[in-house]
Amino acid sequence: MTKNEALKIYRETGKKINAYDLVLSTASYDRLTIAPKKGASYRNEMMAVLEGEAFSVMTDPKYIEAVLKLASCDLKDPLKREIALVKKSLEDIIKFTKEEQMAFSLAQMESNEAWEKAKHENDYPSFEPHLKKMFEMTMARSKKRAPEKDPYEVCLDDYEEGMTKKDYDRFFKLLRKELVPLIEKVAAKQEEVDDSFLFKYYPVEKQAEFMPLLCDFLGFDPSWGYMGVSEHPFTNGFSRNDVRITTNYDEHNVTSAIFSVIHEAGHATYEHQIDAKYEGTAVGNFISSGMHESQSRFFENYLGRRKSFWTTLYPKLQELFPENLKDVSLDAFVRAINASRPSLVRTDADELTYPMHIVVRYEIEKGVFDGSISMEKLNETWNRKYREVLGVEVPNDTAGILQDTHWSDGSFGYFPTYALGSAIGAQLLHRMEQDFDIDAELEKGNFKALTEWLKKNLQHYAALYDYKTLIRMVCGEEFDPKYYIRYLKDKYKKLYRIR
Amino acid sequence: MTKNEALKIYRETGKKINAYDLVLSTASYDRLTIAPKKGASYRNEMMAVLEGEAFSVMTDPKYIEAVLKLASCDLKDPLKREIALVKKSLEDIIKFTKEEQMAFSLAQMESNEAWEKAKHENDYPSFEPHLKKMFEMTMARSKKRAPEKDPYEVCLDDYEEGMTKKDYDRFFKLLRKELVPLIEKVAAKQEEVDDSFLFKYYPVEKQAEFMPLLCDFLGFDPSWGYMGVSEHPFTNGFSRNDVRITTNYDEHNVTSAIFSVIHEAGHATYEHQIDAKYEGTAVGNFISSGMHESQSRFFENYLGRRKSFWTTLYPKLQELFPENLKDVSLDAFVRAINASRPSLVRTDADELTYPMHIVVRYEIEKGVFDGSISMEKLNETWNRKYREVLGVEVPNDTAGILQDTHWSDGSFGYFPTYALGSAIGAQLLHRMEQDFDIDAELEKGNFKALTEWLKKNLQHYAALYDYKTLIRMVCGEEFDPKYYIRYLKDKYKKLYRIR
Repeated sequence: MTKNEALKIYRETGKKINAYDLVLSTASYDRLTIAPKKGASYRNEMMAVLEGEAFSVMTDPKYIEAVLKLASCDLKDPLKREIALVKKSLEDIIKFTKEEQMAFSLAQMESNEAWEKAKHENDYPSFEPHLKKMFEMTMARSKKRAPEKDPYEVCLDDYEEGMTKKDYDRFFKLLRKELVPLIEKVAAKQEEVDDSFLFKYYPVEKQAEFMPLLCDFLGFDPSWGYMGVSEHPFTNGFSRNDVRITTNYDEHNVTSAIFSVIHEAGHATYEHQIDAKYEGTAVGNFISSGMHESQSRFFENYLGRRKSFWTTLYPKLQELFPENLKDVSLDAFVRAINASRPSLVRTDADELTYPMHIVVRYEIEKGVFDGSISMEKLNETWNRKYREVLGVEVPNDTAGILQDTHWSDGSFGYFPTYALGSAIGAQLLHRMEQDFDIDAELEKGNFKALTEWLKKNLQHYAALYDYKTLIRMVCGEEFDPKYYIRYLKDKYKKLYRIR
Repeated sequence: MTKNEALKIYRETGKKINAYDLVLSTASYDRLTIAPKKGASYRNEMMAVLEGEAFSVMTDPKYIEAVLKLASCDLKDPLKREIALVKKSLEDIIKFTKEEQMAFSLAQMESNEAWEKAKHENDYPSFEPHLKKMFEMTMARSKKRAPEKDPYEVCLDDYEEGMTKKDYDRFFKLLRKELVPLIEKVAAKQEEVDDSFLFKYYPVEKQAEFMPLLCDFLGFDPSWGYMGVSEHPFTNGFSRNDVRITTNYDEHNVTSAIFSVIHEAGHATYEHQIDAKYEGTAVGNFISSGMHESQSRFFENYLGRRKSFWTTLYPKLQELFPENLKDVSLDAFVRAINASRPSLVRTDADELTYPMHIVVRYEIEKGVFDGSISMEKLNETWNRKYREVLGVEVPNDTAGILQDTHWSDGSFGYFPTYALGSAIGAQLLHRMEQDFDIDAELEKGNFKALTEWLKKNLQHYAALYDYKTLIRMVCGEEFDPKYYIRYLKDKYKKLYRIR
């Protein structure tokens, strides 16, 4: 096979893989947002069959030969990077048969549906067998993929290339050491910030009316983006110009949906701002989950919780909910959305306690994988950890182990990237502040200035570089969690008047 | 290949075909309802690639061999019927190459998008090249599929097996002869029925609030059905337990969305009530477009326009729109929703003038196919025909040739089945009336009694019999349009006090 022949096969097959990817993403988004429940078993079976078809295309010996041929050639970026990425994922895939792949895919969908039902009905025992199966299948798959490696590290590497247990252990140890004393001090000074008005009755339809205004402010444009509703908010980029997000409303918490939309719009903007020239190639993708989370949490926290972000938006929110917000000043609102206290639900957690929610999940995942934590009654382990790390009592499993969707489809190793992403975000913020006055732009409603900076400095590169290289390029130094810790300490000491 | 080997290949490949069908249906529903516009070109290209993949599976020589082998065996129903249906569709498909199939699929999607844009912007000239292309491609495909047949009859046969130009000519000639004099008399007595209040301002959000009540009444249940919004209302059954419909709101016409929902719920109920044992096989499908339309128009007209249908529902509609309906009695409302006058838009047309809208479309399609009507400035031909047949002036192309989606994806030959379906529906109504008191059940809100009758007598059979056989089984006689004509004459003479 010549290089040109290889390239032709590679491109043609790549287009097919993209086609499967697009329709399966569409079917998956549909499944998680609007699909009628009774159709699930037929739909899941059919989707698994199509996953099998996609698998056959990806593992076609001609395609593999073409990729290996290209990998042996002297290539230039972006093709060089593209082939390296494809080769890595292919090396994984070929460890499995089509039947194994389909069975895993079907088990994921079934487990995900069992989780949704169990969460609704606060019935962890009905979900436990699925969770066990997900742990077991994922561990077995990790071992098969890289017998020489620690199975949990195989998972960690999936979501953030190069990150090991040692890296995360050090990172989380530092966070615990630096933040836990502050969290305790803040918990003791709850009278400083009143956020009770955020938890009054906010009808869902009214909340939904605010979203177009918020999306407009964020530049999340209906011409390239769509927002649906799902049990657990998520983003799925079908292509640069078709990015789907979801939210979920809580009628007794006005900020839950708002901050989930800001968060997902951060993900969506990243997917949208990837350079058009990479579209449809392996480079035309986000780098890693951590990098993705750095963008979403940048929107959600480093921008979305500023006073300047709300200068133009808050009056509109007040207008929608006069009965709850008429007498709440902008300053009081901004203080409230930054209130911190140990709580139960990760997605609603404040910035300061947030990483501790991740610590719980990281320790459980790691423990189950290394056998030090039993899979039996994992809900009780969860509750114990929350007591230990955050000092809160979990009243039911819906607000406990069932709150997140990730484990239900076997996404173990994903959670740590949320904390990592937050820390990367703080470092990017530090860098951005040197270039311009963020508050001045936000007060003008010029959110575009910020997204343009992200695009130009980072997002347009897509997956051309790994996250470490990119941080170095953008920030002129290695990744360093000190910015994150400093940001949290400064902010919360000031807000809660702690010396 | 033994019969058992053939059966195994047939079943395995059938499952794959179903899987492609499901995800492509999902992607298509998504495309027509929520997908962001800017993603269209990438999405269309990918969907065409996947259509190509599906084509490869369907035309796999092993599969064809298996089907031919089974067709030569002595089979029993339902397998016998199943194989006959599959063989027929395969004989068509193999006339085309994968590339031709993909090109046609892409052209359909592009044309459909051009139509939607042109309709919004009242810009027929921008759509005309696409329409021409659709006519040309469809004619060429018909010739290729059956060189010995009239190309338009190939299309007619696609939507209603066995129906020819001669059949439809006779049918439409009868309708014109019997109905046009009555339409003229009704047009001259417009003072008899006041329906002006239906066209006041009805906010879309309020209309949307009525839909869950209406769907509940109809038994269109969210556990197996979902309703979205699209430019043109349609139904797409993904499986028995996952049937999607859409509607479209007009803020100056309260009945437009309501009757489109009743219509699509009729389609949806048919798809849902197909016997579970046929699911995933070629028999587990509707018989024909005419039969499908007979069910939707049965809901919409023969049930949905009765006073008894509205006895329990109308008070709820009044509650939502007190400013428009407070002083309108149930009787006045029911008279209004049955008002008849020559109009512009097919989907909003009353029962009496409706078939004349179909006559226009039938004559144009037939004329373009046989060359007696030019494809140039077809909008002007459209307007002339409307003047001729319905005596109305078309003020713009959006309310004229651009109103319907069907031609935009080359569905020529579909329209006649709407009129045929209406006529079949009237015959079914006549039969149903002999079994029980429809009004008594509707007044009790027992819509289920009617859907159960349809299920038991007709829908559960799915495509096991052709429509002629089924009519004979249900009604004990051949299809006869006399019931349709008698129903329309009786109803409108009474309503407009015509002797």
